[in-house]
Amino acid sequence: MAATSLSSPSTTTAAILLGGWRRRTVAFPFRVTCSAAAAGGTVVIGLAADSGCGKSTFMRRLTSVLGGGTAAAAPPRGGEPGTLVEGDATVICLDDYHSLDRAGRKAKGVTALHPRANDFELMYRQVRALKDGRAVEKPIYNHATGLLDPPELVAPPRILVIEGLHPMYDARVRGLLDFSIYLDISSEIKFAWKIQRDMAERGHSLESIKASIAARKPDFDSYIDPQKQYADAVIEVLPTRLIPDDDEGEVLRVKLIMKEGARHFSPAYLFDEGSTISWIPCGRKLSCSYPGISFAYFPDTYFGHEVSVLEMDGRFDKLDELIYVESHLSNLSTRYYGEVTQQMLKHADLPGSNNGTGLFQTIVGLKIRDLCEQIVAERAAPPPALAAVA
Amino acid sequence: MAATSLSSPSTTTAAILLGGWRRRTVAFPFRVTCSAAAAGGTVVIGLAADSGCGKSTFMRRLTSVLGGGTAAAAPPRGGEPGTLVEGDATVICLDDYHSLDRAGRKAKGVTALHPRANDFELMYRQVRALKDGRAVEKPIYNHATGLLDPPELVAPPRILVIEGLHPMYDARVRGLLDFSIYLDISSEIKFAWKIQRDMAERGHSLESIKASIAARKPDFDSYIDPQKQYADAVIEVLPTRLIPDDDEGEVLRVKLIMKEGARHFSPAYLFDEGSTISWIPCGRKLSCSYPGISFAYFPDTYFGHEVSVLEMDGRFDKLDELIYVESHLSNLSTRYYGEVTQQMLKHADLPGSNNGTGLFQTIVGLKIRDLCEQIVAERAAPPPALAAVA
Repeated sequence: MAATSLSSPSTTTAAILLGGWRRRTVAFPFRVTCSAAAAGGTVVIGLAADSGCGKSTFMRRLTSVLGGGTAAAAPPRGGEPGTLVEGDATVICLDDYHSLDRAGRKAKGVTALHPRANDFELMYRQVRALKDGRAVEKPIYNHATGLLDPPELVAPPRILVIEGLHPMYDARVRGLLDFSIYLDISSEIKFAWKIQRDMAERGHSLESIKASIAARKPDFDSYIDPQKQYADAVIEVLPTRLIPDDDEGEVLRVKLIMKEGARHFSPAYLFDEGSTISWIPCGRKLSCSYPGISFAYFPDTYFGHEVSVLEMDGRFDKLDELIYVESHLSNLSTRYYGEVTQQMLKHADLPGSNNGTGLFQTIVGLKIRDLCEQIVAERAAPPPALAAVA
Repeated sequence: MAATSLSSPSTTTAAILLGGWRRRTVAFPFRVTCSAAAAGGTVVIGLAADSGCGKSTFMRRLTSVLGGGTAAAAPPRGGEPGTLVEGDATVICLDDYHSLDRAGRKAKGVTALHPRANDFELMYRQVRALKDGRAVEKPIYNHATGLLDPPELVAPPRILVIEGLHPMYDARVRGLLDFSIYLDISSEIKFAWKIQRDMAERGHSLESIKASIAARKPDFDSYIDPQKQYADAVIEVLPTRLIPDDDEGEVLRVKLIMKEGARHFSPAYLFDEGSTISWIPCGRKLSCSYPGISFAYFPDTYFGHEVSVLEMDGRFDKLDELIYVESHLSNLSTRYYGEVTQQMLKHADLPGSNNGTGLFQTIVGLKIRDLCEQIVAERAAPPPALAAVA
C-alpha cells in the first residue's frame, strides 16, 4: 500500500483545500496562528536520527520553544504518531513516506532504514509544495498496524519540521532544508540504552539485543549515519570521561557541533568566541556532587566544514548548576535571562533534562526559533529597491 | 664592618632628621609626595627572590605602576644599588642588612644567603620604625667594593618595599609586611638563564656555572626557598609545555599563585572566578604564531593555603595578543581599560615583557597599588565610633 496522494497543484491554497480534510486531522490540537502564504513561505527544518535516539524528546523541546505552549508535548489523541501541530510549527514524521509497509519490507528483505523502503520522490514534492505555500495530502504510516493509512491534509505552516530516518538523504529534499540537525548517539551509548530499556525493562536477552543491533547496523551505516555530514548542528552523545571505564550510560558526554557560516545561524559559545576553552564550573562558587560537570568549547572541522563545538560532560544535580552554566554561555538566542533554564525545568520529566542532551536540544531549539524569525523577517521586508524608494 | 646605625627614637620625625642627610641621598631623584605620618603609617611590601631572578625588573614595573613616572626605572646616579625612591614609594634592598661584608663572609665560610651574614635584628627595628613613621639611618652595602658604606637617612614613605634574599625569613620582619611576593624560578629555567648570561655572554665554562649553582644550592634550599610559603603572591617560572622537551628557556610557562583571603588582596581571574579553566586564545578571532599562547586558571592549595592560580604558557608576538588577553582577565585593579597593556608597552625593553613574567609582575604591581590605596583610605577614615557620631 504505497502512498499515492501527491502535492496539490500550485494554484490550490490551504483555504480551498480545507474541504478535503481527513479523519486524523480532527483529532489534533490544530492551531495555525499564521499562514505560511501570508508570511511569505515555509521555513523547513530537518531532524535526522536512528529510532530510539531521542527524536521525539527533541521535538517536544523544540515545539515547546517554538509554540510557547505545552500542548505539543502531548501526543495526538488516538495515539498515532505523525503530524504534530503547535502554533506556527507543523512536524511531519518521515515514516509517513515509507513506500513499503511492514509486510512489503519483509517480502523484499529490506529494513525501514533502506532507501528502497521510502518514497523520496513524494517526500520531495510534498515538502516543496508546503514550502511554496500549497497544502498537501500526506500519507500516514501506522506504526501500530505497520500499514499505510489513508492520507491526511497538511496546510503549509510557517515552520515545517521533517523528522525521521532520512531528512538529509535525498539531495533534492536536503536542498529544501533551511536548517538541519543530526542526533548522533555513539554505539556504546546506544547499546547501554537498549540494555536498559529492552533487557532491564522488557526482559529481552542480551543476545537478542545484540542481534537486533547487528541486523540494523549495515543499513544504518550506509544510509542514516552519512547524513550527519550535511547537518548544520549535530548533537553527539558519548560515554562520560568523568568516570573511568563507565559503561552505565547514565552520565553522558554530549557535544553540540555547530556549523560555521550557515545562514541565519550563529553558534553559541563559552566565554570567548572562536577560542579553545575547557571549564569546570564546580569550584569555589559552585559546588557539585560526584562526578562533577565539565565543559569544553573549541573550533574544529567536521567533514571538511569549519565548526564550533560545545561539549558538556556530567549532569546537573541542582537548579543552581543549570542557572550558573546558562549564565556563562553566550549567543544562546534567548529572549530573556534564564530562558534555557526555564525550558529545561518545564520539561524536567523528559529524558536528558539533567545533562547535555537536554541542554543542547534546548539551545538548538532557541537557535531554530531565532533562525525562523530572521527568515520570516527577511521575507516580510520589502525588496531593497522598494525600500530605497520608500 | 657590621652596620651599627639603628632606627631613630620614636619622637624623631622625618623633618627633624633631614639635617642628618647623608652622601648618597643627594644623588637620588628623591620625591616624597606624601609623608607617611600624615597618611597614618607606611604600607610595607616584601619581595623575595634569589639573585638573578628578576627582582630589579619587578621593582621597575612596580615603581612605574606606583609612581606613575619613569624616573624610578633609571638607576640612581653613582650606579650603586640600594634605596630607590619614586613618588610615594621607597625601595630598600635588604643586602644593606648584610652583617658580614664580602671578606667577613669569606673568613667565616658563609654565603650571603646564610642568615648569619644578615642582621635581622636591625632589619626588624628599622622597618618597624619606618612603619611607625620614624626615619632611620639605614646601612649601605656596596656591591662594587663588597664593603659596608656609611649609613643613609631614610624617611618613612607611604609605601616601603623591602626586596632581597630574606624579607620573609625572620618572623618579626615578616609580621610587618602588609603584602609579600616571592619570585620562584625553577631550577631548569635558572640554569638556562645562567647558561645564556654566563656562558654565551661572559664566556664562562659550563663546569664553572654548574659549580656556582651547586655551591649556592644548600643555603638557597634552606633559607631562601622556604619563604615562598609565606608569600601572598608567588610568580613561578617553569619550562614551557608548548614545545616538547624545550631547554632553551626562551618560551616560559609562568604561574601567578595568589593567596585567597589575604587582606586587601582579591586575586585576578580568568572568565569565571573560582572555577577551573584552560584557554587558548589563539583561534578564529586571534591568530598567533608558533608555539602559541595558552592560559589556565584554577583553585589550588599551596603550603596548606587556598590559592587561585593564573598560568600563562607562551609569549606575546603582537600587541593585539596582549590587548586581547587583558580584555579577558578580570579583577586586575586597573584604573582604565588597557592599563596592563600600556604598562607592558611602556617597559617593552625589560626582560619578560612578551611573556607571563612581565604580565604577572604588572598585575601584581596593580594589585599592590590597589592594596596600598585601600590601606591608606582605611587609616584616613575616622574610627567607626566617630563616624557614627558625625
